[in-house]
Amino acid sequence: MSLHGDYDPQNIFAQIIRGEAPCYKLYEDDDVLAFLDLFPQAHGHTLVIPKRVAARNILEIDAQSLAKLMAVTQQLTRVLVAELQPDGVQVAQFNGAPAGQTVFHLHMHIIPRVAGQDLGIHAANRADPAELAQLQARLVKRLAG
Amino acid sequence: MSLHGDYDPQNIFAQIIRGEAPCYKLYEDDDVLAFLDLFPQAHGHTLVIPKRVAARNILEIDAQSLAKLMAVTQQLTRVLVAELQPDGVQVAQFNGAPAGQTVFHLHMHIIPRVAGQDLGIHAANRADPAELAQLQARLVKRLAG
Repeated sequence: MSLHGDYDPQNIFAQIIRGEAPCYKLYEDDDVLAFLDLFPQAHGHTLVIPKRVAARNILEIDAQSLAKLMAVTQQLTRVLVAELQPDGVQVAQFNGAPAGQTVFHLHMHIIPRVAGQDLGIHAANRADPAELAQLQARLVKRLAG
Repeated sequence: MSLHGDYDPQNIFAQIIRGEAPCYKLYEDDDVLAFLDLFPQAHGHTLVIPKRVAARNILEIDAQSLAKLMAVTQQLTRVLVAELQPDGVQVAQFNGAPAGQTVFHLHMHIIPRVAGQDLGIHAANRADPAELAQLQARLVKRLAG
């Protein structure tokens, strides 16, 4: 998939937004949804997506929706840092398959980093469901606290 | 440098903001400055930074300043895509040395990607000044156009 083209309403994130596919939800409001990546590159790998904008990438979203997306991304980054106490954290957003994009609905990655631990390969290994559920519970509790 | 600590006003981006160090400037307003990375990981590698906020990372910036930073990041991403026509583009932001941060003033990376070309190692190779100046001229012209 290139940078240009049509939005596919059957992509997995669109299904999650519509409630047609499950996710380990961390946060939701009218505009933004955050959930755990099923194929995490590191422990706590979180995705944040706009709900009301059919944007494939950062080129296609309006500035106000992008601002809301980033406010939630910042909030979740703070929660991940507070709860997991990583040594660092990466915030990243990929546009087009050659840039590493695999789902063509705009999403921000938040990836906690631990010194000396390399990143896993994206979309290579599915996380253990019990581990994701436990992590979800911890982060939702921290977010509320 | 960990995620926590004091902002160092002598970091290179603070010097650039104060006009004490040069840069290949692409865009500037009251709040945001964008310029070419001197050690690009790919052709067109651009940095976007907040000017008025002494934030080391995404944890430390206020939401309004973050929104302005992202609006300019989006604008520059569009300009880079229009002018260089890459196959993809990565937008990334690193917090803490274990996440790849090397300058401790918050900055967004915009990295155009070409299919089949791996990224260079960050901060490894300084770009040719003449090439940077030529690229700067092209992008400034596109931004104005």
